[in-house]
Amino acid sequence: MNKRDVYITEVALRDGSHAINHSYTIDQVTEVAKALDEAHVPFIEVSHGDGLGGSSLQYGLSTTNEMELISAAVSVCKQADIAVLLLPGIGTVGDLKEAANIGARMARIATHVTEADVSKQHIKVAKELGMETVGFLMMAHMVPTEKLIEQAKLMESYGADTVYVVDSAGALLPHQVKERIRALREALNVNVGFHGHNNLSLAMANTLVAIEEGATRVDGSVRCLGAGAGNTQTEVLVSVLDRMNITTAIDLYKMMDVAEDIVAPILDQPQEITKGSLVLGYAGVYSSFLLHANRAAQKFNLDPRDILIELGKQKVVGGQEDMILDVASDIAQKRMTFST
Amino acid sequence: MNKRDVYITEVALRDGSHAINHSYTIDQVTEVAKALDEAHVPFIEVSHGDGLGGSSLQYGLSTTNEMELISAAVSVCKQADIAVLLLPGIGTVGDLKEAANIGARMARIATHVTEADVSKQHIKVAKELGMETVGFLMMAHMVPTEKLIEQAKLMESYGADTVYVVDSAGALLPHQVKERIRALREALNVNVGFHGHNNLSLAMANTLVAIEEGATRVDGSVRCLGAGAGNTQTEVLVSVLDRMNITTAIDLYKMMDVAEDIVAPILDQPQEITKGSLVLGYAGVYSSFLLHANRAAQKFNLDPRDILIELGKQKVVGGQEDMILDVASDIAQKRMTFST
Repeated sequence: MNKRDVYITEVALRDGSHAINHSYTIDQVTEVAKALDEAHVPFIEVSHGDGLGGSSLQYGLSTTNEMELISAAVSVCKQADIAVLLLPGIGTVGDLKEAANIGARMARIATHVTEADVSKQHIKVAKELGMETVGFLMMAHMVPTEKLIEQAKLMESYGADTVYVVDSAGALLPHQVKERIRALREALNVNVGFHGHNNLSLAMANTLVAIEEGATRVDGSVRCLGAGAGNTQTEVLVSVLDRMNITTAIDLYKMMDVAEDIVAPILDQPQEITKGSLVLGYAGVYSSFLLHANRAAQKFNLDPRDILIELGKQKVVGGQEDMILDVASDIAQKRMTFST
Repeated sequence: MNKRDVYITEVALRDGSHAINHSYTIDQVTEVAKALDEAHVPFIEVSHGDGLGGSSLQYGLSTTNEMELISAAVSVCKQADIAVLLLPGIGTVGDLKEAANIGARMARIATHVTEADVSKQHIKVAKELGMETVGFLMMAHMVPTEKLIEQAKLMESYGADTVYVVDSAGALLPHQVKERIRALREALNVNVGFHGHNNLSLAMANTLVAIEEGATRVDGSVRCLGAGAGNTQTEVLVSVLDRMNITTAIDLYKMMDVAEDIVAPILDQPQEITKGSLVLGYAGVYSSFLLHANRAAQKFNLDPRDILIELGKQKVVGGQEDMILDVASDIAQKRMTFST
């Protein structure tokens, strides 16, 4: 295989499952994975959108058991390694072992950007299982760069081969990505990666800035298939990097064909930047907040955007959904004070 | 009105007409223009996608006469100025006078990047009519920066108040935009503008780079509505600039609402980056070449992408569609030579 300057992990079969309500079938995964493998994509992630064990009423039930989907992908890939995502607390060490047992070769252990310490056990197990192991720092826009470095160093110390800056809300601006990747490259001895979302139409720009600053691992999703407004569109990324003489060793025409002929027909509706995904990126909050904010807005006769923006300012994190009503109530009360 | 750092011209009612086969109705234009005006968009362009007089079998027939659409937009705008696009050779001085007569206040005179001299008469007439006048250098990726400057200076000498770098094929990379805008800012005394397309998912990145380098006029299209993969998505651009403390004086919430509630329902299919638009951006060729390349590919048993990329390398321009068969024939012949 040709040398690669940048290794792309394709996430349409994981992050992309958000876009189709976790409804992937074995046939779909088989066809997509086979085509991606033939296009020489090095890593293909297959899991529930929220990682191993994510299939639940809370996160959305998968139509097909993810282990069956992983097996299907493994069985058709001649050169690509299958990756799995695992969020400690949602997925377990048992899930990880099962995935490794059926052929997954890369483990991406994901935590909130301030909670790297919960990845320790899972990173160690993944390494013991002989998997290439990635630490995945989600919602990376929520902390200053110093904090991000501290957390990344924890993941490195647990044995991660790569640490990713994950812009889960699609909220980072290019200069912020630049600062973060540059600092990580200086502070770490392992690979640095970047995972972008397109809520502010900046996924491509941010990915290019990350590569310029030395990230050698980046994520893409064919036809933009991912949560929110989707991820960096893989076939477009491969085209742009080719124009910049940066080698991915991925077959450009085959990637274009996978996107057009195999992935696009899976979608009920093309990915685009809607009001909902735009507001999430602008406010920098979790997508799970949208529904709660809409309900709270109705109760207090507010615009849900005001609530989401305030939640972003207060850096409210996932699991603190109770606070949404409090924040809404505060805004409503302040308005009444001003209007009397 | 608040001071603006950057003036956005909304092109969904002009470039966007490509995306809906030039089928705008008076009701649609009235509703969109009114909402954009209420959101404080300073300039709203209304014309056939290929500019005044573009309604034809060759460029696509408009459902409604564009002068009626311009009148409708003018009648509902309290603060926004209505702009018209004119490509000399397609539109005439007569068209321009008629548009000015019914209330258009800005004229954008567009030529191929090497043909600024054909804009002389139209720029002069627009100025005499009291219109704010923009020179629009299309397919700006096709020439080196020195040539671009030479052509821009011509437009400045004719009286243009602003000269735009127009990335018609969505082919420019951010460092190329940076170089071009920086050079124009140094060479010109008038405003510099940028019009991007999203074929390589770089419309937002390129627009931000242009603004960083001093462009004060940029184009956006609500919900990405434009030719190819569409333009820089206006409501997203306004959000990003707001996050960067760059003032557009546009009401962010209202822009989000126009996009979601008024423009999105007009589209049969959301805008996305398809194989076709991606190839055009990657090759840097005219969208009109796509159909011809597909036909030539069939005739010579080639991949149309190879033909388009070769056309891009040879810098073939619009009007030279005859050359597409020659280029295809050459490629086919070379392949035969190699295979014998």
